[in-house]
Amino acid sequence: MTLPGVEGGRLWRRLMEMAEIGATPGGGVDRQALSEEEWHAWRKLIDWAAESGVQPFIDDAGNLFLRLRGEAGGELAPILIGSHLDSQPRGGRFDGVYGVLAAVEVLETLSSQMPKRSRDVIAVAWMNEEGSRFAPGMMGSEAFVGARGLEEIRQVRDATGISVGAALDEQLAAFSDVPRIAPGFAVHAYVEPHIEQGPLLERERLTIGTVTGIQGKRTYRISVLGEQGHAGTQVMRERRDALAVFTRLASLLHEEIGGYDAEVKFTIGWILVEPNAPSVVPERVTFSIDLRHPCNRTLALLGARLVALMKDAASPCAVSVEPLVDAPSNVFDPALQQLIAASAARRGYPSTCLLSAAGHDARHLAKHCPAAMIFIPCRDGVSHAEHEWAEPEHVTAGANVLLDTVVALLTSPEVAGLSNVTANPRSLS
Amino acid sequence: MTLPGVEGGRLWRRLMEMAEIGATPGGGVDRQALSEEEWHAWRKLIDWAAESGVQPFIDDAGNLFLRLRGEAGGELAPILIGSHLDSQPRGGRFDGVYGVLAAVEVLETLSSQMPKRSRDVIAVAWMNEEGSRFAPGMMGSEAFVGARGLEEIRQVRDATGISVGAALDEQLAAFSDVPRIAPGFAVHAYVEPHIEQGPLLERERLTIGTVTGIQGKRTYRISVLGEQGHAGTQVMRERRDALAVFTRLASLLHEEIGGYDAEVKFTIGWILVEPNAPSVVPERVTFSIDLRHPCNRTLALLGARLVALMKDAASPCAVSVEPLVDAPSNVFDPALQQLIAASAARRGYPSTCLLSAAGHDARHLAKHCPAAMIFIPCRDGVSHAEHEWAEPEHVTAGANVLLDTVVALLTSPEVAGLSNVTANPRSLS
Repeated sequence: MTLPGVEGGRLWRRLMEMAEIGATPGGGVDRQALSEEEWHAWRKLIDWAAESGVQPFIDDAGNLFLRLRGEAGGELAPILIGSHLDSQPRGGRFDGVYGVLAAVEVLETLSSQMPKRSRDVIAVAWMNEEGSRFAPGMMGSEAFVGARGLEEIRQVRDATGISVGAALDEQLAAFSDVPRIAPGFAVHAYVEPHIEQGPLLERERLTIGTVTGIQGKRTYRISVLGEQGHAGTQVMRERRDALAVFTRLASLLHEEIGGYDAEVKFTIGWILVEPNAPSVVPERVTFSIDLRHPCNRTLALLGARLVALMKDAASPCAVSVEPLVDAPSNVFDPALQQLIAASAARRGYPSTCLLSAAGHDARHLAKHCPAAMIFIPCRDGVSHAEHEWAEPEHVTAGANVLLDTVVALLTSPEVAGLSNVTANPRSLS
Repeated sequence: MTLPGVEGGRLWRRLMEMAEIGATPGGGVDRQALSEEEWHAWRKLIDWAAESGVQPFIDDAGNLFLRLRGEAGGELAPILIGSHLDSQPRGGRFDGVYGVLAAVEVLETLSSQMPKRSRDVIAVAWMNEEGSRFAPGMMGSEAFVGARGLEEIRQVRDATGISVGAALDEQLAAFSDVPRIAPGFAVHAYVEPHIEQGPLLERERLTIGTVTGIQGKRTYRISVLGEQGHAGTQVMRERRDALAVFTRLASLLHEEIGGYDAEVKFTIGWILVEPNAPSVVPERVTFSIDLRHPCNRTLALLGARLVALMKDAASPCAVSVEPLVDAPSNVFDPALQQLIAASAARRGYPSTCLLSAAGHDARHLAKHCPAAMIFIPCRDGVSHAEHEWAEPEHVTAGANVLLDTVVALLTSPEVAGLSNVTANPRSLS
């Protein structure tokens, strides 16, 4: 069964209307997590959904859900689709919000084109995916699947000292008219549409990417400790210059780790030098490492190697390595991937399988239920930037593939091979 | 003619009393240029000098002078001795203030032990030697010798936006009871006592260093421009990572320039990374280079080489090099050096000749008149730190050598070989 499809024009108009909330002078969007801009976006989304009888509810973690009821009521676990509404401080018009609006568009299309539906279908906007105001991101999906406690998340503060807890309470209070639940319920399958944030689909002139998984990531904070000295009087052989050692280490790491193979991504993006004065030999350099690789074995190998390289080459300074994130690469549900690829083929959208280099909420949902992602191309592979752009026909195509995937899930009592990750979670009543 | 000597106990007590003005919890001093603390230090100094009939005057550049009149009045150019009262934000009890208090001690000793003196002898406290509040430093001596215009200096602002001009006008207004002149007058000779700020004298168990000159210094501001990217999605071969290029360049420079010979000093002390976020490939790295060498030819050669090395190795980024300071090494007046060394020998102080690795106001005075410096040891060679320390016997010895040098200048109508740099400057009336 294939429905005619979504209303692409309405979806595009809504994307452009959402982009007015937090619009930046450079044509992008500043709509950070738990901000007033996000409240406005919530309200707009709830109003749009209400036009098709779709009902909102929220959870204590600040996730917004829009529920299209099926005949089985709470007896069958719902299908969950969506992404996030928050943006980077100078973000674009598509990252996150596209997945949410495509999901709502699917609900409305189902409502009008498929009156008889077994399960509930729920659109979701996860809280704080970007992690730009409150770091790290993906807080809402982590809390939903129980990967991180809500109490711990609530302690995190933004640069002005406001805690997630305080901002969240304010937002939830502003939506006291909307029913509220504790985070987490059983989910039949989760599907997230998103712009690719990479150049592959555009380069190959493809419309749809079936995402096979998310590449693994390790992050570290490293500190090189030397000794402060006078740039004019301290002779070179007596120095313990933390910056000289840092640049040697970093140069070595860029070469050995960053050049390991064509798939590795190695980034030192953040540095703190102390005391950071032109005529003072630096005492301490602290820096970040962001290491990603699709293969978990390689990621572990490179992680171990970079620590060993630094320890070996840090003399005459001392080096300390603090591992922060260790997120192995994950593989999305093969049966869901199959549904996505089949939909693209049926509608004549050129497509391919590809790995997501960036992280997404689907990474956490995959611990909870069968999960998958649908990618559409973005111009020059650019995201997290004001000139981020997606073409209207790709926007429509991605929503149609999401629609078809949901329809397939609704019509097959059991999709062959659909994994069931969830260990007995609470049902949504 | 050798006078009995200074009152070492009084000089030491005054050093410790001055250290109470702007005292820091860690035992050091925070008495930055044109601060209230410096005002207090000025007032105290003027009061102490007045006890021996020494009269203050100031100039428009914020230099404070204390004048012990000689018989010739304004007919013979005065002998100028001193240093500076301002400190680093976490400075010590000796850097600068020692030279000023030793000079005042010499005036008082001359006043009591040598009633007949030909020339005026003037103690000076130069404005803003350190350059920590208003950068760069040595503003008072630069204005005095005409190396830099006062109007240009007055535009410089501190981190809070206050200009040198505004701070200076306030300080000068607070001392409206003190006579004031325009900067610059003819000087017979300038001698500056100072702690070594290096380890040589202490290591060789010497009391006095006759300073032969100040090593040359070049500073640069370098900018490496690449392209911002996503740490998770941008493949390595397509990156123009400004930090990867910076670390490669810096590592190369530390090796090639910093390892050139035993005398070079090469420091990258300051870095600015943009946007400086862990998951963003850095777009731009701006950094400082501080390069010093006693030999001007070597300094010029290394300066040219470092620029060439960077241009050659910057690919795939663009590099721009902005030279800031180009101060060649200078040689102090040989006849004055002779007088200093002879005094040390006569008083039985073990001494040596040495080059100053740090910059001093004497660098600028040497363009204006015969100039020289007297060094005394400091513990572990440490300065610009709260635990900076000099021994009382060395403090006394340095002041005695300054006394003897001034006496020699007063008693010889012409010291053999004393150079006369000044091209007809205005006489002090």
